[in-house]
Amino acid sequence: MNAGLKVFAPASVGNVGVGFDCLGFALEKPGDEIIARFSNNKGLKITKITGKKGKKIPFEIEKNTAGFAAYKLLEHLGETERGIEIEIHKKMPLGSGLGSSAASAVAGVMAINELFKRPLEKKELLPFALMGEELASGSRHADNVAPSLLGGLRLIRDNDTLDVHRIPTPNGIFASVIYPHVEILTKDARGILSPTVPLRKMVQQSANLSAFILGMFNSDIELVRRSLKDIVIEPQRAALIPHFYQIKEAALENGALGCSISGSGPSIFALSQNSLIAENVGEAMKKIYTDAKIEFQLFLSPINHEGSIKL
Amino acid sequence: MNAGLKVFAPASVGNVGVGFDCLGFALEKPGDEIIARFSNNKGLKITKITGKKGKKIPFEIEKNTAGFAAYKLLEHLGETERGIEIEIHKKMPLGSGLGSSAASAVAGVMAINELFKRPLEKKELLPFALMGEELASGSRHADNVAPSLLGGLRLIRDNDTLDVHRIPTPNGIFASVIYPHVEILTKDARGILSPTVPLRKMVQQSANLSAFILGMFNSDIELVRRSLKDIVIEPQRAALIPHFYQIKEAALENGALGCSISGSGPSIFALSQNSLIAENVGEAMKKIYTDAKIEFQLFLSPINHEGSIKL
Repeated sequence: MNAGLKVFAPASVGNVGVGFDCLGFALEKPGDEIIARFSNNKGLKITKITGKKGKKIPFEIEKNTAGFAAYKLLEHLGETERGIEIEIHKKMPLGSGLGSSAASAVAGVMAINELFKRPLEKKELLPFALMGEELASGSRHADNVAPSLLGGLRLIRDNDTLDVHRIPTPNGIFASVIYPHVEILTKDARGILSPTVPLRKMVQQSANLSAFILGMFNSDIELVRRSLKDIVIEPQRAALIPHFYQIKEAALENGALGCSISGSGPSIFALSQNSLIAENVGEAMKKIYTDAKIEFQLFLSPINHEGSIKL
Repeated sequence: MNAGLKVFAPASVGNVGVGFDCLGFALEKPGDEIIARFSNNKGLKITKITGKKGKKIPFEIEKNTAGFAAYKLLEHLGETERGIEIEIHKKMPLGSGLGSSAASAVAGVMAINELFKRPLEKKELLPFALMGEELASGSRHADNVAPSLLGGLRLIRDNDTLDVHRIPTPNGIFASVIYPHVEILTKDARGILSPTVPLRKMVQQSANLSAFILGMFNSDIELVRRSLKDIVIEPQRAALIPHFYQIKEAALENGALGCSISGSGPSIFALSQNSLIAENVGEAMKKIYTDAKIEFQLFLSPINHEGSIKL
C-alpha cells in the first residue's frame, strides 16, 4: 500500500453576521484532512474515518459528504472505475457551525484533484464540493465551501452560477471562535427563522452588509465595527446558544469589532483588528463558559487566505 | 438690490434598483438653482419661485423644502434674524422620482453656506438638507440628498447618524433616465410596498447589492451587469409606471448594464458602460413612449462627482 497524499481543508465562518447565506471566511484551523491513494480495487472506497467522536459518519460513498463530492468529481473526470482509497480524518467538530461538512466536501475534491495531478483549477472544484455540502446540509449554499476551498472572505452573489468574489481584508484581522459543546442541527436552526423579514430591517441589514464589505475593502476598521451587526438572523437564533449575549458583550467590551453566530451556531465568532485583541476576546469568551461549566473549544485564527491545501 | 449668489443642486437617482433606501447617485442635469442675497429686512424670505409648472410650492419658510432646510442651517449658525432673500428656480420636474425635493433642500443649505462664506464643510450640511427632505417626503432618507450634495454614487449605511460612503465608479459609466409625465406620489409608491420581504429574496437582493458595489469598486463591468437586479421593490412598483417592462427590455437589449425605477418612480434609469451605449438606450426608451403617445423627458448624464456647486 502506497502512502498516498494528504490534503487539508479548513473550517470556515459562514454568514459572518451581516451576510446570511452569502458571506463566509476561512480559518487557519481547525480543519479536516483526507489521505488519498490509488489502489488495485475498482472504484472509490472510504477505508478509514477517524475523529468522528460518536457521530455516525457513513462509509457509503453516496451518503458520505467527502465521498460524494469526490465521486462527483471522478464522474466529471471519467474516472469512476479507477481504484482509489480515501481516509477521512475529521479534525474538527461536527454540527458546530464551523462548516464541518463543507471542509469534508472540499477535502474530498481536493484529494482527488491532487491525485490526478490537478486536472482542474482550484476554483473549478467548487461545484463538486458544493454537491457534497448539499448532500450534508440539504441546501445549496457556498458560504462555507467557497472560503474553505479558495480561502479569504468570500461574497457569494449567486449559489446557482457560483458567482463568488474575494473581499480583500485589512492586515491583521483576527478571529476568536468559541464552540460550546451543545448540538444545533442546521435544519433546526433554519426552521426557527421567520420566512419573512420586515422591509425596514432588510434595508438596514443590507446597508450594513455593503458597508462591512466597503470597510474591509478600504481597511476602514471603524466602518467594519459600525456595520458588523446582524439585526435579522442573530436575534432569532441567539436563544439556541447558551449565554450568547453574555459572550457577545464580553467580546465587544474587550475590543472586538463585532461578534455574532458562526453559520447556524452554536459556535460564536468575533473579529478583532489584531491577534492581541483577539486573544483577550477569546479569554473573555472562555471565562463565561468556564464559569457556567459548559464545555467548549476556543479557536484563534487569522483569516486564511489560502483555503484548502495539499500537505 | 444686490445680485446675490447662485447655487446649483443636481437631480439624483435614489435606490438604484438594488439599494432601496440606502443607495443613490447624482446626475449632472437636471437640477435646481437658488439665488441668495442679504437684504435689509429681518429674517429669511422666499421672494420668487419659478418653474413650478402648476404645482403649489409654498412661499412659507416652514412649509418650503428649500426654505426649511435653509432656515435650519441659519438656526445652527445663529443667523435667523439676518435679512436674507432667496429665489428658487425649479429646473427639474417635481414628483418625478429624480430627487426634486432633495435638490431643493440641498440648494437651500448650499446657498446659505455660500452666503456666509462657508462656515461649514460641505458634508456638514447634510443633516440640514435632510431636514428639508424630511419635510417634503415625510421620511428621513439620505439616498437623494447625499449624492445631490456630495456627488458620486453613495451608500447610506445609516440615516440617523448619516454614515455615508462614496463608492468609486468605473470611468465612463453613463445614465439614461426617462421621465414619463405621470404622477406618482412618494407616499403612494411606499404604500404599495409589502411591509415584509421573503427571507430568500432578502439574501439574493443583499448579495446583489454587495456585488454591485464590489463591481463598481473593481471596475468589473460584467459583475455590475449581473448584479444590477431588483427582485424586491421593482416587481411591486412596476405596475405604477406605464410600459415599464417594455422600457426595461429595450434598455437591456440595447446594451444597458441594468435598468430599474429611479427613486419611487415614475422615472426609469438605465446605466451603461459608456455614453454611446447610453445614447442608444435613451433612443430606445424614447421610442416606446413616443409610440405610446406618452409625454416624457429624457436625460443623459454621467455620474456627477461634484454634487452641488456654486455657479
